Amino acid sequence: MTRTTRHPILNEIKTRFSNRALTEKEVPQEAYEAMVEAASFAPSSFNEQPWRFYIARGERKEKLLQTLTPMNQEWAIRADALVLTVSKQTFTMNGKPNPWHLSDAGCATGFFMLEAERRGLTAHPMAGFDQKAAREAMGVHEEFALVHVMAVGYPGDFDKLSERNQARNHPAPRKPIEEIML
Amino acid sequence: MTRTTRHPILNEIKTRFSNRALTEKEVPQEAYEAMVEAASFAPSSFNEQPWRFYIARGERKEKLLQTLTPMNQEWAIRADALVLTVSKQTFTMNGKPNPWHLSDAGCATGFFMLEAERRGLTAHPMAGFDQKAAREAMGVHEEFALVHVMAVGYPGDFDKLSERNQARNHPAPRKPIEEIML
Repeated sequence: MTRTTRHPILNEIKTRFSNRALTEKEVPQEAYEAMVEAASFAPSSFNEQPWRFYIARGERKEKLLQTLTPMNQEWAIRADALVLTVSKQTFTMNGKPNPWHLSDAGCATGFFMLEAERRGLTAHPMAGFDQKAAREAMGVHEEFALVHVMAVGYPGDFDKLSERNQARNHPAPRKPIEEIML
Repeated sequence: MTRTTRHPILNEIKTRFSNRALTEKEVPQEAYEAMVEAASFAPSSFNEQPWRFYIARGERKEKLLQTLTPMNQEWAIRADALVLTVSKQTFTMNGKPNPWHLSDAGCATGFFMLEAERRGLTAHPMAGFDQKAAREAMGVHEEFALVHVMAVGYPGDFDKLSERNQARNHPAPRKPIEEIML
């Protein structure tokens, strides 16, 4: 299942993929703190740190799960947590729009995912959810934009995936380096 | 200079910071390909892979350098390359706006930076540059948004930094985990 790379690269980047096969095993609270701490070390414009992470477990997870598309609910139900990432749209220092808040928050979520990978966890980001419903479910203030929802848990239980999800549960292909390196 | 972390986290995340102290030593071409390859494995909405990386060295670097703020030029002049990251604003499959292009490109730049760190390189992202001038200098098509410019090189030559840049050349503080984990 692991990608073949042309060059040696960081192991966690190489082995990470958006795995749908999760198993219902509890993730220690310490792991969430570590993933958020890893995310916090992302660089950001004027060190704004626009990112915030809603770690929805138990009842909050059930509420957030309802906002996902049915296709995502199908497998994300076995996540230990659903993590809603949001991003502050303005600079705190002057209240002006922050044009980099989304790219900075995206970098932080990347660090979150790699720390998950290092710990043998999967953090699978999803864009397929109802933004308005998710905002209401988690009580997100309007000054924050919703980035995505990550399903976090231990990999496993491939057999519990639907046939459709089994067929697509592998690292997706990438454009050749030449197309993106200019 | 290394951060103290509350939890064990991925070493490259822990040691990375936006270093201004670079030394004029050539970076092998293979390293750029590897950093771009690492970036390419970031997840993206509908696997659009909106990111593109302009690796500006030699004359192209000189052109891009001129678009940076004077404060950034002061130290970024010793970078081996300036890397302009851009991001496609629409989905290729249907031409519609892609609301996730910036967060996805941000994740890819995070992977780029961590692969740089693994290779003993610094990749320091800057928001301080003239967007219009940088777009013209690199000939970036209007369908791409400019994300940021990274100064890439080997760390070193702290003594060549101005007093002002020496004083601020350390990992910046972060909000406590409790403030960003909700």
